Amino acid sequence: MISESVKEVLESDALAHVVTMSGQGDPNVTLAWVGIEDDEIVLATLFDQRKLKNIRKNPRVAISVETDRVNPMGLNEYLVIHGTGRVTEGGAPELLQKLAYTYLGPDVKFPPMPEPPPGYVTRITIDRVAGVGPWTEGG
Amino acid sequence: MISESVKEVLESDALAHVVTMSGQGDPNVTLAWVGIEDDEIVLATLFDQRKLKNIRKNPRVAISVETDRVNPMGLNEYLVIHGTGRVTEGGAPELLQKLAYTYLGPDVKFPPMPEPPPGYVTRITIDRVAGVGPWTEGG
Repeated sequence: MISESVKEVLESDALAHVVTMSGQGDPNVTLAWVGIEDDEIVLATLFDQRKLKNIRKNPRVAISVETDRVNPMGLNEYLVIHGTGRVTEGGAPELLQKLAYTYLGPDVKFPPMPEPPPGYVTRITIDRVAGVGPWTEGG
Repeated sequence: MISESVKEVLESDALAHVVTMSGQGDPNVTLAWVGIEDDEIVLATLFDQRKLKNIRKNPRVAISVETDRVNPMGLNEYLVIHGTGRVTEGGAPELLQKLAYTYLGPDVKFPPMPEPPPGYVTRITIDRVAGVGPWTEGG
């Protein structure tokens, strides 16, 4: 189960910084829209990007998300997720359209092309939560 | 030499998502204030955090920074830096105070304590620039 404070961040319009690992142990970082389905973090890509290739070889994924909340020292709270990813085929245009309502607005059509490819949906199970915020207080 | 478009992002008040690697190949992600000194990215920590221990063992560092600029598809531009870090001792309060003027405001005293420890300054040389923005267009 994902806690309410974590869910609130993951379902907001804050961008996710997604870290995956190359076979050589080099981190790859891309920004993505994310949402939650069945207690997993989901993201969609129309094309077979490097992060998908990385996840197939090494499923470790880290995601960081800034929040607008500021602590008494003036520092932003942020969420870090350590998880295990798996890449599934198809469903990207539908998930992107759903996420676009959150990230771009209620009237948008996304992807903005007539026949987008089926793409890939990546599903990430949450192994550990870190960062600075209510999700790390009191263990 | 750091290009003007990259410098503009690194010297803004946008937070840096800093990725380091544990000995087991696990990514560690923290948010930090960053600046530029002598064509290197600099960040300061008062205490010997895990990211510093990681960098001493494995100097690979990745940094991602969101921008407010949006491309025609509605997607945010962002900067990714792949670099090599080294941890130096001392100088953290002075660098934090300098960065606080950018990140918090012109009248702030930071760190907000009478005698902060000397801490650590991490310096990161830039090996490769990625992400989505003018820094990746035209090679």
